[in-house]
Amino acid sequence: MTSNQPLYAQVEAALAARLGVDLHPGDRLPTEDELIAEYGVSRITVRRALQNLVARELVVTRRGVGSFVATPRFTQPLTALTGFVEDMDAQGVNSRARVLSVEEIGAPAAVSEALRLPPGEAVVAIERVRVAAGHPVSYDRTYLPQDVGRLVAQDDLENEPIFALLENRHDTPLVEASYALTAETADATVAEALQIPTGSAIFRIERTSFTTGRIPVDYEILHYRGDAITFTTRLPRHDVSDGDR
Amino acid sequence: MTSNQPLYAQVEAALAARLGVDLHPGDRLPTEDELIAEYGVSRITVRRALQNLVARELVVTRRGVGSFVATPRFTQPLTALTGFVEDMDAQGVNSRARVLSVEEIGAPAAVSEALRLPPGEAVVAIERVRVAAGHPVSYDRTYLPQDVGRLVAQDDLENEPIFALLENRHDTPLVEASYALTAETADATVAEALQIPTGSAIFRIERTSFTTGRIPVDYEILHYRGDAITFTTRLPRHDVSDGDR
Repeated sequence: MTSNQPLYAQVEAALAARLGVDLHPGDRLPTEDELIAEYGVSRITVRRALQNLVARELVVTRRGVGSFVATPRFTQPLTALTGFVEDMDAQGVNSRARVLSVEEIGAPAAVSEALRLPPGEAVVAIERVRVAAGHPVSYDRTYLPQDVGRLVAQDDLENEPIFALLENRHDTPLVEASYALTAETADATVAEALQIPTGSAIFRIERTSFTTGRIPVDYEILHYRGDAITFTTRLPRHDVSDGDR
Repeated sequence: MTSNQPLYAQVEAALAARLGVDLHPGDRLPTEDELIAEYGVSRITVRRALQNLVARELVVTRRGVGSFVATPRFTQPLTALTGFVEDMDAQGVNSRARVLSVEEIGAPAAVSEALRLPPGEAVVAIERVRVAAGHPVSYDRTYLPQDVGRLVAQDDLENEPIFALLENRHDTPLVEASYALTAETADATVAEALQIPTGSAIFRIERTSFTTGRIPVDYEILHYRGDAITFTTRLPRHDVSDGDR
């Protein structure tokens, strides 16, 4: 506990960072006394840290029984093009990816249209499950043009987000993205990847990210567990994105 | 056909405006020959208008059989605070509301929190089904503070959108709104209102709209049919809404 944040916020952050590492959904949290000893803070500090984790729906408290790691519900802002890892990092939640497949395929129609490639052109397809605090939250299919895709395919996709790889390793700055959001129910493939029953609610996002010159470089189909994600935004009454500001 | 739009666009708009009026999902459209006669245009113009309606998923063509009114899928931009009627008007689609109930109730916790009222304070609750091109698309619960709510409750809620009533009749300009979006499945109430099977995918939006002075004046819970609505947006890589532009 050495930063200049308030102590309760430091304990809160330390506990949040353990979710999915040594604390998993359903696990009992250390008792108040154990946390007091472990972090060298007062009972009021521990209680405030726990209250905040409860407010964030990361922890549930059962009266007289103890505190437990919740099946978490995460909030992601829909206000800027950010990746999953960036959004989780901003909330102090551990995240990683489980890579299901990386392959070169002929672009299906939706992919060639989004990436403005001739139909059937070779693209690199990456299938991942995004895991936050130990929970599978999103099942994603990412399609990249062959040249940059072959580079990304050799990277550490379990630990490094594709946005960071594109921007920091492969000289492909991201400028903006177009999103199409729909609500669907999980088919067998999505359900298995996310460990939920078939027919569960799914947030489906098609996202095309553009580099400089309005060139599309990354087309993704993201399937978020409906019970795990809330997207938030704030919109002005009059659209200021069309140049009239 | 008298505007200065291209003829095919005029025929397209004229046909779109008939959806839900005298053309309903599953209905066969007039034949090409009938449309040529009806609108006094060439076959190529009729074909282009039909192609555009197919591209907008408002019409389906069955080869050798004819063109039929589709179960429509609408797109709504998530780029400014707009009402359902405004979004449908922008696409030339007829819309209206079916009012299920208007009542004064004690504010439930989520409502009093959103409208910053004491818990249990009287609010006006309005339950509506939004109908586009003859289709139930959204089941909405709107909560208004008592004073403005009593005024709105006396208005023609079947035909006038609440945003327009607030702004144009009740001196309550809207400035911005906060949104929380989730994917869920329809419970019995929502399913019945939207005429879909229980368990169908639903887009749930909680929206709080603010008037000048950051005062919340309208809290809504919107339930959109997942099979009927796509939300679209475009986001910059770096958030420009936080004042760094």
